[in-house]
Amino acid sequence: MLHLILADSELETVPEEISSDKAMKRKAQRRGRRVTELILDSNYYHKPMRKLEDSDRRGRPDIVQICILTALDSPLNRDGYLRFYVHTRHDKVIDIDPETRIPRAYNRFVGLMEQLFLTGGVPPDDPLMTLCDESLETRVEKISPEKVLAFSKDGKEDSGGRLFNSLTLEDDVCVIIGGFPHGDFLSDVKGLSDDLVSIYPETLDAVTVVNHVVQFYEKKFLDYPIFSDL
Amino acid sequence: MLHLILADSELETVPEEISSDKAMKRKAQRRGRRVTELILDSNYYHKPMRKLEDSDRRGRPDIVQICILTALDSPLNRDGYLRFYVHTRHDKVIDIDPETRIPRAYNRFVGLMEQLFLTGGVPPDDPLMTLCDESLETRVEKISPEKVLAFSKDGKEDSGGRLFNSLTLEDDVCVIIGGFPHGDFLSDVKGLSDDLVSIYPETLDAVTVVNHVVQFYEKKFLDYPIFSDL
Repeated sequence: MLHLILADSELETVPEEISSDKAMKRKAQRRGRRVTELILDSNYYHKPMRKLEDSDRRGRPDIVQICILTALDSPLNRDGYLRFYVHTRHDKVIDIDPETRIPRAYNRFVGLMEQLFLTGGVPPDDPLMTLCDESLETRVEKISPEKVLAFSKDGKEDSGGRLFNSLTLEDDVCVIIGGFPHGDFLSDVKGLSDDLVSIYPETLDAVTVVNHVVQFYEKKFLDYPIFSDL
Repeated sequence: MLHLILADSELETVPEEISSDKAMKRKAQRRGRRVTELILDSNYYHKPMRKLEDSDRRGRPDIVQICILTALDSPLNRDGYLRFYVHTRHDKVIDIDPETRIPRAYNRFVGLMEQLFLTGGVPPDDPLMTLCDESLETRVEKISPEKVLAFSKDGKEDSGGRLFNSLTLEDDVCVIIGGFPHGDFLSDVKGLSDDLVSIYPETLDAVTVVNHVVQFYEKKFLDYPIFSDL
């Protein structure tokens, strides 16, 4: 089983310190929410966000959406061998049922995240996604994997063959990928990982790394003809 | 070089026959456009779209966006060995400069497509994306590839090793992937292709197929350590 954690993801509600912004207040009113119940989004709140620490990387629900969408559609997930978690800047962890159908429309996805942060679970009756307070370290401990790999431009350029060496499809492997647009992990990922691995000498989008890791694992462990002899 | 064509993509402007819809007229007015200059979007225009033929698959700019975003970020594209084209339902072809930075925000991407359909090239001064009238067949002829592969659930489950057999990185290979949510190609893809290949027994999202094909090609031809011994 591959446990993939999108770590330090830039998904959060609007911080109190910028909640007096007028445009954001109007938006909140239209949606029947408090400002601090809205999801922070750098695409819409670029100006008020300038007051925040790390303002150039925060407010990126689009990264979370594209990563969940492509991970859950993979043959690996369809065959039941992938668990995908979103860990956020403020140490919250989202658990996602592998059969969840994530909204493709961006506005609907953001609406769903709003509801998730408000209630802790969506849909309300029989939640497919749940949110809890948890550090990356605690989550990795809970998974209790045979091996922890993290991916980063600054990792070592290792042979793909060594990634899942001496593991089987039944072993729990944890892979940590950054859910932010640039910069470094906020959590102590190096301390948590057995290996820090690099795919490519330049920074890649989170979704590109997610796709590559999922497919490395598919190539190693799934039996479909297309993954053979490549 | 891998030439990847997203074929019969559901990207088009609002058809004349539903252009009298009031909600769409208001939206057009707000954007300073005619209704028929807006991009058809099933997320927003679900109701008026019901009058259209094939209404359950049309109006999906989101599929085009997610496929371009992930294809252009791949190591294959960064190293200069990928060309990505969007062919649409009404036989238009979009050429995309490999260094184009596609908007991640959905509303901005749709605005860009609106401008592209209106003017034929964006940005206006030195276009990175251009639109022309061209069938899939004509485009494949122009590329004049050594081999044409199409991907479909109904293709044969062939060994990955045979995909790019006896080809080199310098050869032009054309891969055709459907840019629609479900159903079959509208163009005669079978007639154009040397092989019709299946990755997985269920229908996969277009972006999942794009990612897999790009990575099959990377695995075969790129020299980074991570692609070895998998």
